[in-house]
Amino acid sequence: MAHIFREIDNCVTAPQGFRAGVTACGIKSDATIKDLAILASDVPCVAAGTFTTSTTKAAPVIVCQEHLRGGRAQAVIVNSGNANCATGDPGLLNAYRMTEFVAARLGIENELVLCSSTGIIGRQLPIEKIEAGVEAIELSTDGGNAFSEAILTTDTRPKRIALEFEIEGRTVRLGGVTKGAGMIYPNMATMLCYLTTDAAVEHRWLEAELQAAVAATFNMIAVDGDMSTNDTCILFANGLAGNTPLNAQHPEAETFRAALRHVTQYLAIEMARDGEGATKLMTVCVTGARHKTDAIKAARSVTLSPLWQCALAGGDPNWGRIVAALGASGCQLDANNFDIFIGDVHIVQQGMAAQYNQDDARAAMAGNEVAISIDLHLGNGTATAWGCDLTHGYIDENTLYTR
Amino acid sequence: MAHIFREIDNCVTAPQGFRAGVTACGIKSDATIKDLAILASDVPCVAAGTFTTSTTKAAPVIVCQEHLRGGRAQAVIVNSGNANCATGDPGLLNAYRMTEFVAARLGIENELVLCSSTGIIGRQLPIEKIEAGVEAIELSTDGGNAFSEAILTTDTRPKRIALEFEIEGRTVRLGGVTKGAGMIYPNMATMLCYLTTDAAVEHRWLEAELQAAVAATFNMIAVDGDMSTNDTCILFANGLAGNTPLNAQHPEAETFRAALRHVTQYLAIEMARDGEGATKLMTVCVTGARHKTDAIKAARSVTLSPLWQCALAGGDPNWGRIVAALGASGCQLDANNFDIFIGDVHIVQQGMAAQYNQDDARAAMAGNEVAISIDLHLGNGTATAWGCDLTHGYIDENTLYTR
Repeated sequence: MAHIFREIDNCVTAPQGFRAGVTACGIKSDATIKDLAILASDVPCVAAGTFTTSTTKAAPVIVCQEHLRGGRAQAVIVNSGNANCATGDPGLLNAYRMTEFVAARLGIENELVLCSSTGIIGRQLPIEKIEAGVEAIELSTDGGNAFSEAILTTDTRPKRIALEFEIEGRTVRLGGVTKGAGMIYPNMATMLCYLTTDAAVEHRWLEAELQAAVAATFNMIAVDGDMSTNDTCILFANGLAGNTPLNAQHPEAETFRAALRHVTQYLAIEMARDGEGATKLMTVCVTGARHKTDAIKAARSVTLSPLWQCALAGGDPNWGRIVAALGASGCQLDANNFDIFIGDVHIVQQGMAAQYNQDDARAAMAGNEVAISIDLHLGNGTATAWGCDLTHGYIDENTLYTR
Repeated sequence: MAHIFREIDNCVTAPQGFRAGVTACGIKSDATIKDLAILASDVPCVAAGTFTTSTTKAAPVIVCQEHLRGGRAQAVIVNSGNANCATGDPGLLNAYRMTEFVAARLGIENELVLCSSTGIIGRQLPIEKIEAGVEAIELSTDGGNAFSEAILTTDTRPKRIALEFEIEGRTVRLGGVTKGAGMIYPNMATMLCYLTTDAAVEHRWLEAELQAAVAATFNMIAVDGDMSTNDTCILFANGLAGNTPLNAQHPEAETFRAALRHVTQYLAIEMARDGEGATKLMTVCVTGARHKTDAIKAARSVTLSPLWQCALAGGDPNWGRIVAALGASGCQLDANNFDIFIGDVHIVQQGMAAQYNQDDARAAMAGNEVAISIDLHLGNGTATAWGCDLTHGYIDENTLYTR
């Protein structure tokens, strides 16, 4: 079934009833950089989140998980420049205080406010600066783009999108923003991602759909294999579009599902493309795996191989490193019966070098998007993963981060 | 119990009755570089091996595993410049032929000859060059050092060692060589490693001791997280020292065990230190884990984090990345009760920043060896892992490898 989605502006404030605002409160050393942001709905939302599975999760992740227990939320406050992780009880208290500042400002319950932090690990938040910042922020219905910029750390550009589509003849909107760049190998969630919609959605279905979308998109990207302590993805649905609440039985549930998949996949790919130091996006599509789990293992193993990431940076079709990554992935394969294509060039046939022209192979590696297709000829399992190349830029970005 | 080991020269040809020789047979593009080597015992040996667990294992690995079924071997032939992997049936035939050439030259059974290949994946071996090379090689009792050099690929220096010690009052020797550098995250084995001894050893005990030594040393190093298709570690024991064959009941079994551990640990550390582009060796020692498995997970996760590897390269004590790696490792931990030291500097106390001097922390990161100690305060599990920093050199080495 084809769905008609129109791309529109304003990302997370595109849906009805959402407002956002930002300020430079002085967490980052350059006091002119916007480092504090609030996103809020005019009315309480049905909300769901997915979070890092790290055992050293940051304080704001703990607070989000607690506040989301009721399945409702109305606002989120985000700071960049400090991760509020490995900060003990004082850090947890500061995370609660962030939500209290916003609740007081908006006149809503503390439990309806979520919080996120991203930046350096191990330093206490300058909580007074945040308190003053919350007072200074003005929320507006076109604040989405500014919000998408204030949450960045080493990203080179914001990642944002909004779609407009119809359910029950009513206009529905879905917007999203994300930040990423380094420490990208999400597990159950991505770095920071906020999604808003004015669709009315039942909580249990919203939660299930968010988890499925995250699994297929954010959990399929890799920059460096490092999982963050702060990974967070939250979806707010305020219901102002006035449709019958969506659930699995709703005849147009599939439209919302497709829009959510479109938005999360777009944001995931933009994160991979903007990986620290990245110059090339790679898309690895595995077919013919024994089952889905094996396909995921195979695809992710290729995106995660530093040796293949380096070959990609050099435009070198050194496909032996793809073979090595497949062999190490733990997926079942027949070493004498798998095929690999780079772009349209058939590189490996039945596990051995195919007859191909070396210039064609180099040409297939030359652009800023490289597609790798792998057929394992063992079953119907398929998966797509995205990654990027490994360059001097990644190292330059990460050798002196705390200075 | 302290053991007295004397370091001696000639590595794998230090033990009685072992000879080695090398030649430049023209596999590598520079025809002056030695790229073919043979190591042989004058008499059949009890032998054991550990190998890659990759499902795309190279042809020579398959041949080694087959020939070692009887627990005996007398020689190994090794080429560099070509991995003989992803080469299908022709590749497997070539691996068998390599062993046949050596068997004919030495006048021994084919099944007593092992073979290894290392280099680019996916190209067929120039088997005629190897056949001519085998004829040209002259074996000598001081050929060990030349052997250690001919097996290298991107290594900057050979890794070799030999120890002399006593068992039953007799002089026993144990020698070893290895090659590594990239694609280093062994699993059940390392890259290529050959160990020789003139001790008499029972086969079953030799196999168990080799596996234990590999698990504690080669399987605890990481350069880039890529597992090779060719990882191989073989131990030859020819018994010429004349001792009662060693087994678990032998009163001096512990002496041999300690010597084997010493040799494999030395070679493993040298591989980590010579990781592609590496400028610093890191040693990560975990104590207080719930059990050994958790300690291994924690230690390896830190050595494998590209973000921490970059911080190490920059001498930046950005310990939040150690915390993130621990959190992602899957080991059980109490986020409010673990300690981290860099060198002697107590950086993290009870999961939070300790009171430390930033200059001291930088000084602890400044040398070419950096020690990280982590206490999880949960049990008695301990593990040590070794790794290196991630620099421009790694990327330069790997962007245009096949050109």
